[in-house]
Amino acid sequence: MSENLKFAVIGGGSWATAIAKMLCVNMDEIHWYMRNDAAIEHIINHKHNPNYLSSVEFDTSKLKLTNNINEAITNADYLIFAIPSAFLSVELEKLEVSLENKIIFSAIKGIVPETSLIVGEHFHVQYDIPYYNIGVITGPCHAEEVALERLSYLTIACGDEEKAQNVADRLSGNYIKTKITDDIIGTEYAAMLKNIYAVAAGIAHGLGYGDNFQSVLMSNAIREMKQFIKKVHKMKRNINDSAYLGDLLVTGYSIFSRNRTFGNMIGKGYTVKSAMMEMNMVAEGYYATKSAYKLNQGYGAETPIIDAVYAVLYEGKEPKKTFKKLCEFLD
Amino acid sequence: MSENLKFAVIGGGSWATAIAKMLCVNMDEIHWYMRNDAAIEHIINHKHNPNYLSSVEFDTSKLKLTNNINEAITNADYLIFAIPSAFLSVELEKLEVSLENKIIFSAIKGIVPETSLIVGEHFHVQYDIPYYNIGVITGPCHAEEVALERLSYLTIACGDEEKAQNVADRLSGNYIKTKITDDIIGTEYAAMLKNIYAVAAGIAHGLGYGDNFQSVLMSNAIREMKQFIKKVHKMKRNINDSAYLGDLLVTGYSIFSRNRTFGNMIGKGYTVKSAMMEMNMVAEGYYATKSAYKLNQGYGAETPIIDAVYAVLYEGKEPKKTFKKLCEFLD
Repeated sequence: MSENLKFAVIGGGSWATAIAKMLCVNMDEIHWYMRNDAAIEHIINHKHNPNYLSSVEFDTSKLKLTNNINEAITNADYLIFAIPSAFLSVELEKLEVSLENKIIFSAIKGIVPETSLIVGEHFHVQYDIPYYNIGVITGPCHAEEVALERLSYLTIACGDEEKAQNVADRLSGNYIKTKITDDIIGTEYAAMLKNIYAVAAGIAHGLGYGDNFQSVLMSNAIREMKQFIKKVHKMKRNINDSAYLGDLLVTGYSIFSRNRTFGNMIGKGYTVKSAMMEMNMVAEGYYATKSAYKLNQGYGAETPIIDAVYAVLYEGKEPKKTFKKLCEFLD
Repeated sequence: MSENLKFAVIGGGSWATAIAKMLCVNMDEIHWYMRNDAAIEHIINHKHNPNYLSSVEFDTSKLKLTNNINEAITNADYLIFAIPSAFLSVELEKLEVSLENKIIFSAIKGIVPETSLIVGEHFHVQYDIPYYNIGVITGPCHAEEVALERLSYLTIACGDEEKAQNVADRLSGNYIKTKITDDIIGTEYAAMLKNIYAVAAGIAHGLGYGDNFQSVLMSNAIREMKQFIKKVHKMKRNINDSAYLGDLLVTGYSIFSRNRTFGNMIGKGYTVKSAMMEMNMVAEGYYATKSAYKLNQGYGAETPIIDAVYAVLYEGKEPKKTFKKLCEFLD
């Protein structure tokens, strides 16, 4: 780590907080943007984020907290975006400074609803960021376990190996192992698609399917994901690597996953609207389902699971019947 | 299902009981051998196996129960063995009738300790059964969920397609979907190896590793399994099919798995002996670990997970240090 690179974390949620914690191990200055003034004040005064991973204690001498996204971006070379994809556009509308020459890493797992693009593509298309300045930080990783300092593995993807390594070096630590790859498209699509499969797992659970079915669903999901990603961007990748299969499993088997919880409510009979209202947030998998389904109209991958989730969420089809039909396509 | 084939189930445990239940849906006569006289009497009088899946009610007019293995074998064309691999040799010593022309399907997931062979190989080597008369019934399938009639998928493997289909037809039903394959070696090795990975998952859990690590472990396990099986028997197979990945997941993520429970105790500090005594049974993964490790001395697959479990179970190595070292090999 020879260069004196500056990093900024964009976002104040649990994943942003986990990333800030990881960076603090290896860096002395972290620019950290969040909207919430009260949270900033609380962190400065009490060394803890009041709303997310509140057990994590920060060395506040290292944190340059700001509620001004332009300030954070101006002061940093590397920008790590960790806000829900649904809020990305709103945040980027605040930009007054240029993103030129900034290295942009996405720790967002989802689709930007306004453009139906994954985050890397969104920055490329909307902001002319060249792909060699775009990267992805992906799990399998629950932020909560980073707070507990439980061993976790991250995959850092960037077309430019040195930039991937720069980020990996600054996230690595006693309980964080990192691996780099050049598959920015594949890892980001995997991170997006896995949310759809987590919704599917939730629906199945809500309908009363058991562990035997869940394992068959996940086994079919990884084969479906492989096909889909291959259509989007064909390259040599092992779909069973942690960034793809591991990420699918950590979400698909997590009872804490928002996507799984959302699906579970749908399976139990909630309408999409009432499930969203009840959860008071939007599951990433909801948007991902629409985008993946629409995209696949062009690609033509065989995606019975995505199709079933789409039918339930967007076409008002009955979950029970839809999943009974889906079961005929699984093996 | 034109032929009037006779089936026998060998074993009185939960998986044998689940198989007998499935066969009852499609057949009018099932020969069923179990050692336990009291259990036989109870089933005849009360229509339920008193010890395993006791909620399942049998149509006893279809069951030809016997405590004489020779009687069951004499009366059947197809024999489905569903007893723990550790007891197979003892049972087979009772044979007075020939196995010639019998079609033998193994629903046993493990290694025969006396010969260090998987069950199919054991019958082939020790009893001269030709491979075209040998098959495998594999999951992912917890017997408990068959009892609850929750949708489950079985894979039926046999070199002879017609025989595989004969078994598949008789197991299929409203809540059981079946698939056939000719990969008898691969499916049986997968069923054996997954028990080792479940032990590994248990050890990791006992040591305090979390869900992030578990997903990385499973992602590495399926890659390791693929390599290992390829060395044993190279053929075109998709390791992400339910019989391989699905079976790994249903066991590796099950908190009810004996193998995972055994591993968990080891991780928490029990000695191998005391864990076995405490559980009052032997986890299949214990024998599988030794056999797989020894076998791999010849094959030379990269199997860091199997090696770590072997070191802990058979070389008295400390779980904590061994798994810390293992983590360096995972990605």
